[in-house]
Amino acid sequence: MTPVVVRNVARADADAVRALGECGVSTVHEAFGRSGLMKPYMRPVWRRARTTGTAVTVLAQPGDNWMLHVAVEQCRPGDILVVAVASDNEDGMFGELLATSLQARGVRGLVIDAGCRDVAALEDMDFPVWSRAISAKGTVKASLGSVNVPVVCAGVAVAPGDVVVADDDGVVVVPAKDAVDVARRAKARVAAEEAKRRQLAAGVLGLDLYAMRDGLTKAGLVYVDAPDEPKP
Amino acid sequence: MTPVVVRNVARADADAVRALGECGVSTVHEAFGRSGLMKPYMRPVWRRARTTGTAVTVLAQPGDNWMLHVAVEQCRPGDILVVAVASDNEDGMFGELLATSLQARGVRGLVIDAGCRDVAALEDMDFPVWSRAISAKGTVKASLGSVNVPVVCAGVAVAPGDVVVADDDGVVVVPAKDAVDVARRAKARVAAEEAKRRQLAAGVLGLDLYAMRDGLTKAGLVYVDAPDEPKP
Amino acid sequence: MTPVVVRNVARADADAVRALGECGVSTVHEAFGRSGLMKPYMRPVWRRARTTGTAVTVLAQPGDNWMLHVAVEQCRPGDILVVAVASDNEDGMFGELLATSLQARGVRGLVIDAGCRDVAALEDMDFPVWSRAISAKGTVKASLGSVNVPVVCAGVAVAPGDVVVADDDGVVVVPAKDAVDVARRAKARVAAEEAKRRQLAAGVLGLDLYAMRDGLTKAGLVYVDAPDEPKP
Amino acid sequence: MTPVVVRNVARADADAVRALGECGVSTVHEAFGRSGLMKPYMRPVWRRARTTGTAVTVLAQPGDNWMLHVAVEQCRPGDILVVAVASDNEDGMFGELLATSLQARGVRGLVIDAGCRDVAALEDMDFPVWSRAISAKGTVKASLGSVNVPVVCAGVAVAPGDVVVADDDGVVVVPAKDAVDVARRAKARVAAEEAKRRQLAAGVLGLDLYAMRDGLTKAGLVYVDAPDEPKP
Amino acid sequence: MTPVVVRNVARADADAVRALGECGVSTVHEAFGRSGLMKPYMRPVWRRARTTGTAVTVLAQPGDNWMLHVAVEQCRPGDILVVAVASDNEDGMFGELLATSLQARGVRGLVIDAGCRDVAALEDMDFPVWSRAISAKGTVKASLGSVNVPVVCAGVAVAPGDVVVADDDGVVVVPAKDAVDVARRAKARVAAEEAKRRQLAAGVLGLDLYAMRDGLTKAGLVYVDAPDEPKP
Amino acid sequence: MTPVVVRNVARADADAVRALGECGVSTVHEAFGRSGLMKPYMRPVWRRARTTGTAVTVLAQPGDNWMLHVAVEQCRPGDILVVAVASDNEDGMFGELLATSLQARGVRGLVIDAGCRDVAALEDMDFPVWSRAISAKGTVKASLGSVNVPVVCAGVAVAPGDVVVADDDGVVVVPAKDAVDVARRAKARVAAEEAKRRQLAAGVLGLDLYAMRDGLTKAGLVYVDAPDEPKP
Repeated sequence: MTPVVVRNVARADADAVRALGECGVSTVHEAFGRSGLMKPYMRPVWRRARTTGTAVTVLAQPGDNWMLHVAVEQCRPGDILVVAVASDNEDGMFGELLATSLQARGVRGLVIDAGCRDVAALEDMDFPVWSRAISAKGTVKASLGSVNVPVVCAGVAVAPGDVVVADDDGVVVVPAKDAVDVARRAKARVAAEEAKRRQLAAGVLGLDLYAMRDGLTKAGLVYVDAPDEPKP
Repeated sequence: MTPVVVRNVARADADAVRALGECGVSTVHEAFGRSGLMKPYMRPVWRRARTTGTAVTVLAQPGDNWMLHVAVEQCRPGDILVVAVASDNEDGMFGELLATSLQARGVRGLVIDAGCRDVAALEDMDFPVWSRAISAKGTVKASLGSVNVPVVCAGVAVAPGDVVVADDDGVVVVPAKDAVDVARRAKARVAAEEAKRRQLAAGVLGLDLYAMRDGLTKAGLVYVDAPDEPKP
Repeated sequence: MTPVVVRNVARADADAVRALGECGVSTVHEAFGRSGLMKPYMRPVWRRARTTGTAVTVLAQPGDNWMLHVAVEQCRPGDILVVAVASDNEDGMFGELLATSLQARGVRGLVIDAGCRDVAALEDMDFPVWSRAISAKGTVKASLGSVNVPVVCAGVAVAPGDVVVADDDGVVVVPAKDAVDVARRAKARVAAEEAKRRQLAAGVLGLDLYAMRDGLTKAGLVYVDAPDEPKP
Repeated sequence: MTPVVVRNVARADADAVRALGECGVSTVHEAFGRSGLMKPYMRPVWRRARTTGTAVTVLAQPGDNWMLHVAVEQCRPGDILVVAVASDNEDGMFGELLATSLQARGVRGLVIDAGCRDVAALEDMDFPVWSRAISAKGTVKASLGSVNVPVVCAGVAVAPGDVVVADDDGVVVVPAKDAVDVARRAKARVAAEEAKRRQLAAGVLGLDLYAMRDGLTKAGLVYVDAPDEPKP
Repeated sequence: MTPVVVRNVARADADAVRALGECGVSTVHEAFGRSGLMKPYMRPVWRRARTTGTAVTVLAQPGDNWMLHVAVEQCRPGDILVVAVASDNEDGMFGELLATSLQARGVRGLVIDAGCRDVAALEDMDFPVWSRAISAKGTVKASLGSVNVPVVCAGVAVAPGDVVVADDDGVVVVPAKDAVDVARRAKARVAAEEAKRRQLAAGVLGLDLYAMRDGLTKAGLVYVDAPDEPKP
Repeated sequence: MTPVVVRNVARADADAVRALGECGVSTVHEAFGRSGLMKPYMRPVWRRARTTGTAVTVLAQPGDNWMLHVAVEQCRPGDILVVAVASDNEDGMFGELLATSLQARGVRGLVIDAGCRDVAALEDMDFPVWSRAISAKGTVKASLGSVNVPVVCAGVAVAPGDVVVADDDGVVVVPAKDAVDVARRAKARVAAEEAKRRQLAAGVLGLDLYAMRDGLTKAGLVYVDAPDEPKP
């Protein structure tokens, strides 16, 4: 684990990135075989945030944001910075100044398995962040980590260049090699869901729409009526 | 614990349900002798949500939302779906499609001791949900549970037909048999609080309004002045 | 630890209080040598809340808000009530009525290492609260604590009269004796940050703005190019 | 929720209690349809503790152990004291003196959804306790609760007289009315497991012993060989 | 918060330290007015550990144990090292080598609001440690903190020279200025408890021994008999 | 993420596995550049457990242990079963019967990011397990996962055939390709530490042994004497 910065990593296909972003986190996660979802403690620091892009990864040390400054230089328009930390830490590694710098480079957001500060300013800047905590706790710049190496962030293995989709429901990661295929399947799900939504809104039961009754009976589900004593 | 669906359970008195809903969670909880409140990790997925209704209960398996589909059929206008899980789980068992189906049946909200997804869509639909987590994590439909049996949800025993009141302060449950009585006492509290609020706003101290000074002295409270060294 | 109420404690310098409030939590925390920040579980009960003032401290018992009523009388305009609890507790010790009383006395907010209720009403009243939980759980008035003694609240030692600054990023406490000095340094930071923000927005890298490249090289950071296999 | 002490509650069948205790927590939980298990944060305060008995229930207030003293008088030989608290609390409500008193009355252990102190002494006394925390935090005796009312303890509804089985694996509760039936099924499981254990020890695979291969194939499981590149 | 090492701090009275250690954590905490107890997440890394001594305090940075090495030099026989961290961190800041060094100087144990490693070796060395976590996670030596300044450790304010008592029940801190007085009261409690234990063991009820019955009746406690339907 | 079982995966070098096991978790983690350590919530279910081997990986569904039965067949002597779960879950997926089966195949232990039951029996069998929880909660056998695919377990990416070392300090994973190199460096550390231990035991300070004094001075550390007022 020598500290290293990997330059010029390949990014996932741009069309697939765009398509995945339009589908949203829940649909992409389902289309990817219910995989790739970060743990639910990762929350947007302001509501209704939504973004998608390609991962520039950072492995940082707890309480130390030095490598975030290093990573900015490796970012290109359309990227999302993904920060993992060597052990659990909630310090405020990221704030308004780093966001200003990333925004100047066309970066579309931050996903950080640590804390974030200046959240009111970030909302005003329209810079979206998903983090495990909101914290003003300051950090040092003393210990090296790495940029653009494979990391585990909030329970998910992320490689540089992978697709990151984030919204109010969380954060999902799709490996670059699977992006085109998952995007295709995600778009198909969106279309299918729209038809289902109309039927359900019209009062059709999911039990019938999904043809579940036989399976439930075979599994042994029993229906009984409540005893005839009305509640007071 | 044979899997079972109980049909046609009796619901709590409709007038009492309405009255309890008007009083709000904190007042109902106090009026019920400080009982019936779910644990505070149960939070609305969007702010300023507020609802009340009668419980249709579900006991689901972790990572499995099959029984939610079964439960929809048992719901009537004015119900709230209350989902307990056999062990701690934060998966996204509920989302926009199930909400569409419930809303089509007149259901007033969901209380789930697990995760919820599609939270932006739920807010747009004005469908209120209280959950322990927001998570896009998909679930399977493979194992049976039960509908309309007594459950423990977020630390509270809930029977089908009980009154559920939920707002920004949390979720409280009142057994159907106690609903009329608690509603009466809750309304009395609301009236009394309004009078107190006016006095406190006018500068009357709670120490005097609630006549606490004697009790404090008897309990041994001592007043002293700070030493006379001004802070720099 | 005899229960005691200390009257007429000295408050921090009013100008310093005002200046610290203008700088915000993150800046004050940095200006105070990265000290004084409460744990990040302390969150505002409504967004965009922001306040500053001098601490009136309370040591309460779990599940018991008696001493909050006692503390109201000790509050003056410009104070913030800071409540510590003898052991971890999330009960709703504070709500609309106590807020009405504090607001009538010119108190600027509440910081409580326990639960808070009536959060919708508090937002409507524009009374800001930072708490570890939102909970309607009712409390008793049975056991004594103290007012205006030194306490530990959310991991920070707080003395009566200390400066409290709170916003979306959390809560920071500056001892009264350090207020003037920290305020001076905080204002200097605000000025310096504005200049940096402009440069970063113009595309200057933090690596150059902060002259980090030499330090990184000395520490052993290595740059390599990604192998030449484009992602599919 | 008027404070009340219910005397002379009926206890579950003594033979069933004994039989359930011999089977252990995991087996009883399975025999009861995978129900009745308290949350896994309930841990024995000393290892290899193991007990069974009938529940005397307590609903206590946070930070207040008054009702435990009241409950002692209601205990009979063969009982287990089960303490629920009105909200989450880890204070040390129970220690050596209360254990001495319970042991003098033939009580077989304590299950408490709060803290426990004097754990070294409890081990020396051979008095078993399952708790959510070990804590020396002292409590007051100021607020009433109830004894021998239905409670929810660590996620499980417990009625007075129910069977409690506790060992290194946790705590399970079987309603008195189900005790005989569950005991019968638990004993059958023990016998069946012994046969299975012998076969598995002899190298028979569970896949074959439980005839799982067909089901796996039908569900779509695929077997492939690893690519032929040996690890270095 | 300039980094500083304070040398030659005064220690609490040695006789009082010894007496407090003999009384144990729970008794000392009660004798000190139910104050001074660290949060219950602080647990001994091996069972039946028990120690007492005077605090040498450390404020360390997350993931950085440099200041522990600095602190060793300030330790004298009879001291206990008390480590606070600037933000929540579970890294393994302490292990066998540091313990060897401390033991060589006559230090009686470690209390650390972070992680500890080499726990099997520590038990073999008979060096007691209380920590918030057991973790092998390595740390850096890059950022300064302070030694022998006032800190907040696991929720308790600790000054250098204060008395630390630790056993299976947790960790309690008594300020040096209160040590003699608290020791006297703690010894009185031990004597009184021994008499109570004998009576309780003989079957006297706490209700009578502590004369609680009148208070319970005045508070409104009601006794009723269970309805006459025996459980099946 | 099609469910798949990969057969005949290559295992790490057997000599390296043995050497790494002799060094223990903390040393291996350091020798691997402070990498590869699972989160500290992974604890041995019985004390003084210690093992090493090559990973057979499982991706299971929450509340479902079907794939553990599938995985047994893929295990060889010297393997360790490593179980990841698709979302956070503490159910008791593993117990005495599965351990019997694994032990019959020469498997050296289990690492599971979920719950474990029958812990007393496991200790009696001398079968070591590291888990995130101890829980008797039963599971179903209804949903597929995979065997011998790359997984993330307790925050660490694990590939089949990787080296797993586990003891009282936690669990560390070394990729098969790095095993020989890390083993060499770990053995060197053990030798170096033994020399340091002797010096530290003889009273040499770490400040001198590691030549830290210059660095501390350069970083700005200041030494002062305590003011001359002896504590009472």
